[in-house]
Amino acid sequence: MNAPHRAVDFYFDFSSPYSYIASEWIEALAARHGRVVNWRAILLGATFQVTEIKSPVSYPLKREYTLLDFERSARFAGVPLRLPEKFPIATINAARIFWWLAAADPGRARDWARHALRALFARGVDLSDAPSLRALAVEFGLDGSQAQDVWNDPTWKAALKAANDAAIALGVFGAPFFIIDGEPFWGNDRRPQIERWLEKGAF
Amino acid sequence: MNAPHRAVDFYFDFSSPYSYIASEWIEALAARHGRVVNWRAILLGATFQVTEIKSPVSYPLKREYTLLDFERSARFAGVPLRLPEKFPIATINAARIFWWLAAADPGRARDWARHALRALFARGVDLSDAPSLRALAVEFGLDGSQAQDVWNDPTWKAALKAANDAAIALGVFGAPFFIIDGEPFWGNDRRPQIERWLEKGAF
Repeated sequence: MNAPHRAVDFYFDFSSPYSYIASEWIEALAARHGRVVNWRAILLGATFQVTEIKSPVSYPLKREYTLLDFERSARFAGVPLRLPEKFPIATINAARIFWWLAAADPGRARDWARHALRALFARGVDLSDAPSLRALAVEFGLDGSQAQDVWNDPTWKAALKAANDAAIALGVFGAPFFIIDGEPFWGNDRRPQIERWLEKGAF
Repeated sequence: MNAPHRAVDFYFDFSSPYSYIASEWIEALAARHGRVVNWRAILLGATFQVTEIKSPVSYPLKREYTLLDFERSARFAGVPLRLPEKFPIATINAARIFWWLAAADPGRARDWARHALRALFARGVDLSDAPSLRALAVEFGLDGSQAQDVWNDPTWKAALKAANDAAIALGVFGAPFFIIDGEPFWGNDRRPQIERWLEKGAF
């Protein structure tokens, strides 16, 4: 009965370039080690409030480095990334669509996450713009009106808030964030440690 | 005449566990690629002021994670680390000794850095305690009175401040921080990217 422990919990934010990069490798890495991935959309805005942290691009000096590092880290991972002109943007509506899909089909929610992250970070689609997000939902195969209803629906607003609260209660303070066998890993750059953990267990 | 570009500039803080971990692998890695390492002691306190960043252990949630990650990252790198009971501590005097030694012999300064970092993070020597630091200086082969005179000497206080100012002017906002061929890399966890850079050049 250790099946629940075989999952990799993957917390991501739709507005986070490092989350996008990690979203491109976590599935294949987990699969190589017989693990499934539980995708969990969160809002960094919520964790930032609790931790009193700001976006890395909000601090002098760190801003310039981080803008460079987003793109270099993407190249290092072999992931196409072109930082959008508007950055960062509000992606709360994309996250509400995620949780609506997840209620019925987590695999479909994951596919939406990958589709929307790629749209934002490889094609420059502005997820904070309602018509653009609606068009992206249609491109993904959803009904545009329904998608818009979802992101305005108190049910899915509450679902996202509950997901944030649950993540924070587990110590999640940034994204991407991974919890594997109870062990927390923060950041796209923890990939080598995650690989070792999945290969050989706790170290 | 591209000799100046063959160096790896390595910025570290004596109070930083991630700096300690990086200090244990950077020399061998650089040497494998025909590079020398320029060791540069800085004070995170000075960069934190400019960037409005605090120590990672000063933020709720991030604190608990970071304390775990220091030790896990050390084990991952094969570096012995036992976080001191008093942490973080003021290591400004150790840094002033570093710059005093560096003025005459950069290799000797590097050896002092490695000796003091190991003392703090593997043996729990409190570098903020004057008698302990003096004893450590003697153990390293320095004259104890002279070491104490050095850390009280305005010349070496100014040398450290100048090193901090120069680092900040180059965009250094944390530690460990590496500048290689003009490219900045922040954090012990940028090791894989540094390895690729040294092996294959810019990416």
